[in-house]
Amino acid sequence: MPELRRDPVIGRWVIISSSRGKRPSNFDVVAEYPQGGACPFCPGGEDKTPPEILAYYNSGREKNKPGWWVRVIPNKFPALEIEGDLDRSGEGMYDRMNGLGAHEVIIESPNHDQPIHEMEQSKLEDVMWAFRDRILDLSKDPRLEYILIFKNHGSAAGASLRHPHSQLIAIPMVPIRVKQEAAGAKSYFDYKERCVYCDVIRQESQQGVRVVAQNKDFIAFAPFASRYPFEVWVMPLRHSSEFQEISKTEVSNLSAMMKTVLGKHANVLDNPPFNFILHTSPLKTPKLPHSHWYIEIIPKLTKQAGFEQGTGFYINPTPPEDAAKFLRDISFP
Amino acid sequence: MPELRRDPVIGRWVIISSSRGKRPSNFDVVAEYPQGGACPFCPGGEDKTPPEILAYYNSGREKNKPGWWVRVIPNKFPALEIEGDLDRSGEGMYDRMNGLGAHEVIIESPNHDQPIHEMEQSKLEDVMWAFRDRILDLSKDPRLEYILIFKNHGSAAGASLRHPHSQLIAIPMVPIRVKQEAAGAKSYFDYKERCVYCDVIRQESQQGVRVVAQNKDFIAFAPFASRYPFEVWVMPLRHSSEFQEISKTEVSNLSAMMKTVLGKHANVLDNPPFNFILHTSPLKTPKLPHSHWYIEIIPKLTKQAGFEQGTGFYINPTPPEDAAKFLRDISFP
Repeated sequence: MPELRRDPVIGRWVIISSSRGKRPSNFDVVAEYPQGGACPFCPGGEDKTPPEILAYYNSGREKNKPGWWVRVIPNKFPALEIEGDLDRSGEGMYDRMNGLGAHEVIIESPNHDQPIHEMEQSKLEDVMWAFRDRILDLSKDPRLEYILIFKNHGSAAGASLRHPHSQLIAIPMVPIRVKQEAAGAKSYFDYKERCVYCDVIRQESQQGVRVVAQNKDFIAFAPFASRYPFEVWVMPLRHSSEFQEISKTEVSNLSAMMKTVLGKHANVLDNPPFNFILHTSPLKTPKLPHSHWYIEIIPKLTKQAGFEQGTGFYINPTPPEDAAKFLRDISFP
Repeated sequence: MPELRRDPVIGRWVIISSSRGKRPSNFDVVAEYPQGGACPFCPGGEDKTPPEILAYYNSGREKNKPGWWVRVIPNKFPALEIEGDLDRSGEGMYDRMNGLGAHEVIIESPNHDQPIHEMEQSKLEDVMWAFRDRILDLSKDPRLEYILIFKNHGSAAGASLRHPHSQLIAIPMVPIRVKQEAAGAKSYFDYKERCVYCDVIRQESQQGVRVVAQNKDFIAFAPFASRYPFEVWVMPLRHSSEFQEISKTEVSNLSAMMKTVLGKHANVLDNPPFNFILHTSPLKTPKLPHSHWYIEIIPKLTKQAGFEQGTGFYINPTPPEDAAKFLRDISFP
């Protein structure tokens, strides 16, 4: 079973996935399936994956057969496992925990080559509904504290399979970055009695210089202290701390906005590899007045990861105002 | 002039380097010099770099001429600039600061192709003395709060020039990761009245399973909650919060240990790209009882940077005990 370990100084938890590539020659963290041969995520490959957890399809289809347009499966080589007890133990001064949790793959389309910005909007909406359905289902499990949803697109961004998919990791603790964000947002709220993200939205909307696009429910902007060139945050205009509270109209406008931003990225940056990460509140602290969910989109353009990950100090060669202007000026669709 | 910007929620400062690659087609953050042609860091190329700040050489040599074995120069395209006032200003709810600071390059050897583990130990000692000399000199500047020293080796780890060099960035604030480490270490100290790193050293030494090498003054080990495969920390056995307090014998044993660890990495992992980062205390808080300097060495083997940087949550496919065993079992030199 994998193991969760806590850094004794910073308090950061790390998954130590001992069942995976231990050997010096094997480091592909996200290698879910061997390369070559038929794609296991394509229709017809359903028997090469673990049985599905959720799928959207037309009536008349059998489970684990073609006919779906969104399909959620357990990761075949999960970083965490859902069976077992939440067993926390010490090793001298160190803390460890069973690697309990969930690791799922959301197959976003039956089409092997379809990037998100080329998907039909209604189909992308169903990907968003799948995210929500999985969060709602997993949040019934009292052992789980946080759900991470993210997408690695392109090999340089960590994707091992080309077929469009995102991933979900549910864990029995709150990640340190989420805690830090919550603490920062809470201090601001305690002082101002306003949500810091709502204030960010207000200022970005008024200034306009970092705005990439806006619709009835969402704003996309290059954040003031962007760590990466062309980093964009997509944020709901309505205050809400949890993604799973999203309304039907918001799902529709979020999908439209994601298509726009990813399409603009693809056009300006020539189909870059990218990651997106859903930032939402911990499962056990719903309806926070100081927290606000959003999606962070980071094109993978620079290489200076080691230094920056080691220090938390970033050098960004592209001012967000310039990035936003490039993205605003190119039309999509 | 470059600019420093503060994230309004987390409080993380970012360098926005507007004089650099603004265009979507140009993202090489660390591109100090154009590729091709003679190497500006090789002896004979001294006139292609800004005038040297420091060099170690035999007597009789003219400044900015060959004959040196360590040479420190300002970065030709600095992320920060040393001239100017520390001007802090707001933009609505946001904070910004002049991009004041220093960005220097430490050329580690006149030999274009010599990795650290193949250097003569006495020459590597002089690289360490150069680090110390630069810290001592820059710490006289009251505007500066922290000095980052790091090395990017290999293109995948962010190096743009092959010639062996490390970098120094001096900044007018304390980076968030340093603050977090200090806060975690301080809580431990307040509770236990002991340095958490000294306790880590004691436990690692006793358990032995994560130890890579040890000499009279230093221990090298794969940390319990390693984020990356084959991550190694090199830590002085003697409690000291600042690198610049290092003794002559320690410089010698540190150089021996760096050669050992990097040589083992090179042998086990087939000359991997890597980053190392010197973790030392902020300039204005000397002699902390709870803080302990060390060097973090991270081979660049996995690609999943975006997700992990976005969340602070890491998946490590190689248990540190396995990594340490591989590294112990291979002999170097």
